[in-house]
Amino acid sequence: MTYCLGILNHSGLVMASDSRTNAGVDYISAYRKLFEFCQPGDRALLICTSGNLSVSQGVITQLKWDIQNEAEMNLFSLPTMYEITRYVGNKMRGIQDENREWLERDNIDYHCNMLVGGQIQGEETQLYQIYPQGNFIQATEETPFLQIGETKYGKPILDRTLTFDTPLDAVAKCALLSIDSTMKSNISVGPPINVAMYEANSFLLQHGLQLRLGDPYLAKMRKLWQDSLRQAFDAMPNIEWEQVSDPEDVLID
Amino acid sequence: MTYCLGILNHSGLVMASDSRTNAGVDYISAYRKLFEFCQPGDRALLICTSGNLSVSQGVITQLKWDIQNEAEMNLFSLPTMYEITRYVGNKMRGIQDENREWLERDNIDYHCNMLVGGQIQGEETQLYQIYPQGNFIQATEETPFLQIGETKYGKPILDRTLTFDTPLDAVAKCALLSIDSTMKSNISVGPPINVAMYEANSFLLQHGLQLRLGDPYLAKMRKLWQDSLRQAFDAMPNIEWEQVSDPEDVLID
Repeated sequence: MTYCLGILNHSGLVMASDSRTNAGVDYISAYRKLFEFCQPGDRALLICTSGNLSVSQGVITQLKWDIQNEAEMNLFSLPTMYEITRYVGNKMRGIQDENREWLERDNIDYHCNMLVGGQIQGEETQLYQIYPQGNFIQATEETPFLQIGETKYGKPILDRTLTFDTPLDAVAKCALLSIDSTMKSNISVGPPINVAMYEANSFLLQHGLQLRLGDPYLAKMRKLWQDSLRQAFDAMPNIEWEQVSDPEDVLID
Repeated sequence: MTYCLGILNHSGLVMASDSRTNAGVDYISAYRKLFEFCQPGDRALLICTSGNLSVSQGVITQLKWDIQNEAEMNLFSLPTMYEITRYVGNKMRGIQDENREWLERDNIDYHCNMLVGGQIQGEETQLYQIYPQGNFIQATEETPFLQIGETKYGKPILDRTLTFDTPLDAVAKCALLSIDSTMKSNISVGPPINVAMYEANSFLLQHGLQLRLGDPYLAKMRKLWQDSLRQAFDAMPNIEWEQVSDPEDVLID
């Protein structure tokens, strides 16, 4: 499994991912799922991937090739985030189509999902989620985050703490805690955690972080969050029960 | 969807459920999913249901019939929690089998899941989860909670706050917050929320609560938890970024 998320706000973008990949429960390994592409001063792009690793790796390889070979369409030549996302979606379609017949006949899931975020000169910072079919949706002020992979365990903290106006540093903290919550509840999501923060109109990727298993900073964050959450929990009043006076009342609901 | 959970500890048992039922997103209704059966002084039983409503209602109806008709096997006659759970599992198998052919041909999911908890004189308090196939597992000290339905959104708070030694009142609070977290993230889980707390060796069901939409107590709990969680979040330090000095470093990950 995998868990990646992107969060957009008024002053930028945060994207984060875990790194655990598994083929069954008996083959676990670590692969990077957050990729950075930057042309300083012109554009800064972040891509997260989930799903079939051979497909997502193939897409990332082709994206890099197109830059290196200065293909007509590439991440550094296309003029808008919309066109970039469509281009990445088409790459996904191509590689899935190439492998689909062989994977499908052995009941192997060939799908992958991607998040594409960033900013190009002349545009606002944007964030997109590409579905396995290659179509995509865009994050908006109302729903400023998008998630792929194992999305559920890490959603409550986003629902409780995030708005489009949350400061960017708090957004980054929230992304990290969302991934940490997921790791705690699903062992198929695991470190290293990668987090990248993009400040709008900087056209530079200056803030990145990789937290490995046993990293003291990750351990500190995790313990602090655990303690804070437990304090918050302890501070909540106990339930005020409606006393059932006659036991016969509850014989049959 | 549905979310129900049962939590066992050294001094008793808490079971809780939401009440939302949906047939597609355009038909939402409320049905009770937590059922109480008590023979004061001898046994106290709690059953939660998820899955196909016609099947789970059928099972509950047959359980009540068997008590009323003093059938040889019924919830008040069987001598152990294990036998009670096997009996409920067999009822589930029977009703599912009766309907399977007709539902399956229209691609309707006929499965249901149940939690069975409680205590019978001479035994410890116990908690079981019955799978749709009628087989079952039992909660233990290591994993004192069992969940059915939409289980993921409400699991992080259980993973962070619960152990077998958590006091029973705190367990009940935790169950309520776990359901509230799920309602916040998934609209197919909704009020009224039912919570029941059983104190070991009481053989009575004395503590019950139903929280309806707009209930001031539910609103108060929800706001308190939201505020406490936000304070805990605000108190966490921001991420200490590893500064990327040379933008070229991040050109290709």
